[in-house]
Amino acid sequence: MTEADLNATELADCLDGRIGLLREVAQTSGVDAFIVTARSNLLYLSNLRASAGILVIGIQDESLQLLVDFRYHAAATTLTEKQVAPRGLEIVPVTGSYEEALGRVLGHAAVTRVGIEAEHMSVRQWQWLDRRAEVELVPLVEVVERLRMIKDDGELATLRRAGRLLSEIVPDVLALAGRRRSEREIAQEIDRLVLQAGFERVAFETIVASGPNSALPHAHPTARELSDGDLVILDFGGVLDGYSVDISRTVSVGRASAACSRLYSAVEEAQLAAIETARPGVTAEEVDGAARTVLDAYGLGEAFGHSTGHGLGLDVHELPRVGRIRAGVKPEMLVRGMVFTIEPGVYVPGLGGVRIEDDVVVSGSGAELLTWSERGLVVV
Amino acid sequence: MTEADLNATELADCLDGRIGLLREVAQTSGVDAFIVTARSNLLYLSNLRASAGILVIGIQDESLQLLVDFRYHAAATTLTEKQVAPRGLEIVPVTGSYEEALGRVLGHAAVTRVGIEAEHMSVRQWQWLDRRAEVELVPLVEVVERLRMIKDDGELATLRRAGRLLSEIVPDVLALAGRRRSEREIAQEIDRLVLQAGFERVAFETIVASGPNSALPHAHPTARELSDGDLVILDFGGVLDGYSVDISRTVSVGRASAACSRLYSAVEEAQLAAIETARPGVTAEEVDGAARTVLDAYGLGEAFGHSTGHGLGLDVHELPRVGRIRAGVKPEMLVRGMVFTIEPGVYVPGLGGVRIEDDVVVSGSGAELLTWSERGLVVV
Repeated sequence: MTEADLNATELADCLDGRIGLLREVAQTSGVDAFIVTARSNLLYLSNLRASAGILVIGIQDESLQLLVDFRYHAAATTLTEKQVAPRGLEIVPVTGSYEEALGRVLGHAAVTRVGIEAEHMSVRQWQWLDRRAEVELVPLVEVVERLRMIKDDGELATLRRAGRLLSEIVPDVLALAGRRRSEREIAQEIDRLVLQAGFERVAFETIVASGPNSALPHAHPTARELSDGDLVILDFGGVLDGYSVDISRTVSVGRASAACSRLYSAVEEAQLAAIETARPGVTAEEVDGAARTVLDAYGLGEAFGHSTGHGLGLDVHELPRVGRIRAGVKPEMLVRGMVFTIEPGVYVPGLGGVRIEDDVVVSGSGAELLTWSERGLVVV
Repeated sequence: MTEADLNATELADCLDGRIGLLREVAQTSGVDAFIVTARSNLLYLSNLRASAGILVIGIQDESLQLLVDFRYHAAATTLTEKQVAPRGLEIVPVTGSYEEALGRVLGHAAVTRVGIEAEHMSVRQWQWLDRRAEVELVPLVEVVERLRMIKDDGELATLRRAGRLLSEIVPDVLALAGRRRSEREIAQEIDRLVLQAGFERVAFETIVASGPNSALPHAHPTARELSDGDLVILDFGGVLDGYSVDISRTVSVGRASAACSRLYSAVEEAQLAAIETARPGVTAEEVDGAARTVLDAYGLGEAFGHSTGHGLGLDVHELPRVGRIRAGVKPEMLVRGMVFTIEPGVYVPGLGGVRIEDDVVVSGSGAELLTWSERGLVVV
């Protein structure tokens, strides 16, 4: 949450606003209640940070119940006492299983059609509820995720602060990538820098991929020691007040060969083209296309197998998707307040890989960089 | 995986053994194929470490297909080339969506009943497959998880090594908990010690809960500084070669009050009683009961709201459940090779909390401690 930037009243207003928007959206699906089980969505709507919990939101009425077990009961109660929870939130203690508690809550409420998070509810939970609860379950897709996609001012303040902190350690991170040091050792030092910078935790498992490993888009750090001629991809991120930022840089150990330099130039150009393209009214697919067009022109289209980017927020991968147009999926129009990575990469077995990643927020007229560092291939 | 402890042939044998056992178990459910989507289960059966991927296991035949997207294709291919994958594994590249690729694979195979992981498949995936694939989907519960519950020798070697590494840093961790230091600062230092010890990453978000925060069973580290009279719960863990270990200690800042000392003694006694109880032929619920009986006798039964422990392995929370008997759930008989935590705790608002946690493996005649440190309440 964005507690750091808001006072209690502002925070409660903000949470009320989110619940209000959710009610509006859910109403169009004709459900009487909506059940939130995904932990980031729970945090977004209730301000409770927990590994379990179910939020039951009345859509046709003002009811709002948070089911939590013993582990989080005190924390949830404190939120309501300090009035940093949505107003009217009722805490329901769960003593047995969550399914049973939910069954009881739904039984007491006068609801017949209940929306569930199709992407997060498991088949097991679904079948249990379907059998026991006397309601019709309506699977809804990405309801809270689509609200979360557009950040409010409090969230943007947190993300800007996080982006600056991450950018500030980039020079120190690049300096770590020396000869004779192992990927794993460097990854651990990066994690230490991220925590020292003030992040509460790393946002994902840090990637240090050197030489042949750099040609694997998602390598795990190994005992391999860096050596002359390696391209090294460093991909790391941090979580600040719940929000993730994410950056990648590629360096060369010793002078890069002409072939490696060309890879770097291609990716850098692709990234700049994508950043240039991002602005309100353009689709996420067009941003992806801008990077892809550059890499295609270099004959590297095939070597760029992943998407150009992904949304950032309470999850390190969230909406919007910044990738190729997919059959049956509606294009995503960019609007102000969307935050995502722009990270084209190429992976060439036998040569190596390059990925350059920064985070942006869509502003009124373009894209504002949340992360940055000096441009150009750094030789270490 | 346990690559560190096995050569390629042994590892391939081990993976083949797991697939073979899975086929035996799945056969009793009358399915022709079984689909594995949970990432730890995928790693356990295929040796591929990836955030996405689907393993399709023929149950009536020897077919074995691993669907992976661009990001993991090279890594998966390398496993088969180096023969550190189950024998006969076919890599199927996914270019569009996983659902579409899976639909095609199932369409080509002569299967009619397909087992899925009910706990891991989302309602969205289920509905997609149910509509498009011309097969009957059979939700199965905890199939791979029950295999994983009993560790083989390679896994135990890794877990023993991990437990020793974690135990060795306990004195340094306890020394961090000094006056005027914040919970967050201490948590970050703990993470650094865990990584320095050789773990590839921390197993979960480190907990440092002091004074009033120690009465919250799952507190997140805050800016609160430790002060005299605090009880401080330190709960941390590491991942080594994919396997998690987990330990908690509670210290007192300055001399503990009589009430705090009594809490500590009660939990220590409860933990020892549970460790004493754990052996083959006893149920996990009896281990939980042993701890609960001690705390009840202290009048602290209500203050102990969570389970006594949880399994450890490729996930930091896995089977067996070491908790109260639940209606409709079969008791879990302990057998040799099960690995779990024993971590009773009490949480008393206004006074504080105590949790003491160690990891054990069920041996031939009792429980072998995987983690340890000096007993008794440490005053810092």
